[in-house]
Amino acid sequence: MMMMQRPQLQDVQQAASMLLGHVHRTPMLTSRTLDQLAGNRVACKSEHLQRSGAFKFRGAYHALLRLGEVSRSPRVLTQSSGNHAQALALAGRLLGFEVHVVMPRESPQVKREATASHGAHLYWCDAHPADRLRVLDQVKEKTAATYVAPYDDPHIIAGAGTVALEMLEQDPDLDVLVIPVGGGGLLGGMAMAAKSLKPTIKVYGAEPSGADDAHRSLLAGKPLPMPEPDTIADGLLTSLGEWTWPLIQHYVDHIFTVPDHAIVEAMRLLWGRMKQVVEPSGAVALAVALSHAFKARHAGERIGLVLSGGNVDLGFLAHDKQS
Amino acid sequence: MMMMQRPQLQDVQQAASMLLGHVHRTPMLTSRTLDQLAGNRVACKSEHLQRSGAFKFRGAYHALLRLGEVSRSPRVLTQSSGNHAQALALAGRLLGFEVHVVMPRESPQVKREATASHGAHLYWCDAHPADRLRVLDQVKEKTAATYVAPYDDPHIIAGAGTVALEMLEQDPDLDVLVIPVGGGGLLGGMAMAAKSLKPTIKVYGAEPSGADDAHRSLLAGKPLPMPEPDTIADGLLTSLGEWTWPLIQHYVDHIFTVPDHAIVEAMRLLWGRMKQVVEPSGAVALAVALSHAFKARHAGERIGLVLSGGNVDLGFLAHDKQS
Repeated sequence: MMMMQRPQLQDVQQAASMLLGHVHRTPMLTSRTLDQLAGNRVACKSEHLQRSGAFKFRGAYHALLRLGEVSRSPRVLTQSSGNHAQALALAGRLLGFEVHVVMPRESPQVKREATASHGAHLYWCDAHPADRLRVLDQVKEKTAATYVAPYDDPHIIAGAGTVALEMLEQDPDLDVLVIPVGGGGLLGGMAMAAKSLKPTIKVYGAEPSGADDAHRSLLAGKPLPMPEPDTIADGLLTSLGEWTWPLIQHYVDHIFTVPDHAIVEAMRLLWGRMKQVVEPSGAVALAVALSHAFKARHAGERIGLVLSGGNVDLGFLAHDKQS
Repeated sequence: MMMMQRPQLQDVQQAASMLLGHVHRTPMLTSRTLDQLAGNRVACKSEHLQRSGAFKFRGAYHALLRLGEVSRSPRVLTQSSGNHAQALALAGRLLGFEVHVVMPRESPQVKREATASHGAHLYWCDAHPADRLRVLDQVKEKTAATYVAPYDDPHIIAGAGTVALEMLEQDPDLDVLVIPVGGGGLLGGMAMAAKSLKPTIKVYGAEPSGADDAHRSLLAGKPLPMPEPDTIADGLLTSLGEWTWPLIQHYVDHIFTVPDHAIVEAMRLLWGRMKQVVEPSGAVALAVALSHAFKARHAGERIGLVLSGGNVDLGFLAHDKQS
């Protein structure tokens, strides 16, 4: 990819027009029960209903469209624990790219299978970053593929930011956005776009306590990577990047952290009451909206939160386990 | 309840106007993957997103509104394996009725808990019909409550039939409806309403092979009750009733049956691809739409099917089971 300056609102708007008709305009789901529990009016942007089951499809498809403008290379390469891999694999299949993906062996089975089902070439690595880089270098040398980063890339960030444009079109009166943060592509892109369009809006990150590098970085005023993240939210294990950190530092008001048991409680509410299959990483923003710390700051307001993905292993759905 | 003649289209239309603003106008969900697998364009009427998590709320709320017109009795009584119990309990709480429910002990925990959470009084019975009637008589004598049947009641049938009005408003071009059948309230009410509005539409019942009394009854030309139903679809164990059988005989074109493993496959598709939590009884119509027998008759058509409920035990969603 060519060098670029920090993504701006117009990059997000341009991405939105390029993605029109290729991504789903996902609904904003509401629930009386949820409003009562949250003490606010809550609208859930349903990116678990996005193509490939996560918001990641927006950035992946946008990045490949842009790559097609400047390169004739038919091969791309990435590394991802799951949702970006699935998204890039699907986008590549639709746009005629050969997709190579380095994935940790312990990625959820559903994400490994979906990535393979779109025809991507898979390579396994250990959880340790050094091993991931080693495998990545090997594949890069073998394939001469163009690297498409999972989040730390201006085109990926601009694609993810389109979620904020849609939310403010669907509900212009939103007072607050709550957005999951892992590597920071979604949070950085959305915060920049939302604050540029509506400077009075509050934008918060939602992060698992066991992977709270964004929270600590924002307090410290400098990026502090997470040495050994430990959380049920497998999509949020990553640390902020060189492109995402400045956006988050500049545009995000605060990062709330929630423990894993609160994330599971939020999932139970989503599955049990709203009948929506949302993965742990996708339920973190709801867990924040239901927390005492959040409710102490906001009551009776209009909250928009992102359900970022719904790709979760369903091995328990076997015939003999039902009753 | 007073004696009534067989429910007509105008009864359903009147029910719809009484229910306006009290029931959700549930969405028709679509999916490219689903269309490919089905070989037809499929729209899923999402009654798992209805209040109380099932279409049953329509009939229950309607029946209580009607009861309020003719009686000052503040007490109602019913028997149900789950979704009608939950629906009547919620409708009763909203409309100021004291609700008494006789439930089989083996009803799903989620349905027992939700019924109790709405403040209903619960009484347990065995699965055997004789025991259910014994407990029902006891409670009736003790409470002098008015009985509201779970499906074999004109007001319940008219309420359920409103699903068909909405579907034909949401997609007037539907060629075929596929509707789960247990006691036949939903199928009978919808078939009558749909055929009255659009005589060319095909209306099919979807029934588990292990509880196929509607299928056998339609072939025999007379109601044949199911002695020992055995299926994963806990909401479809009941046999046709005196009010529902004539409607089904008159208006339904055919009943397709599907084995339990096909129902579980349909659930996996709904949960995994469409991210919708639908219970086994609610997935039966989709299992039919995906069956060879159905696809042999219909290709390239517009199919409307009903996802009738989403109340399923989520005990597996515990913190230590996630990965």
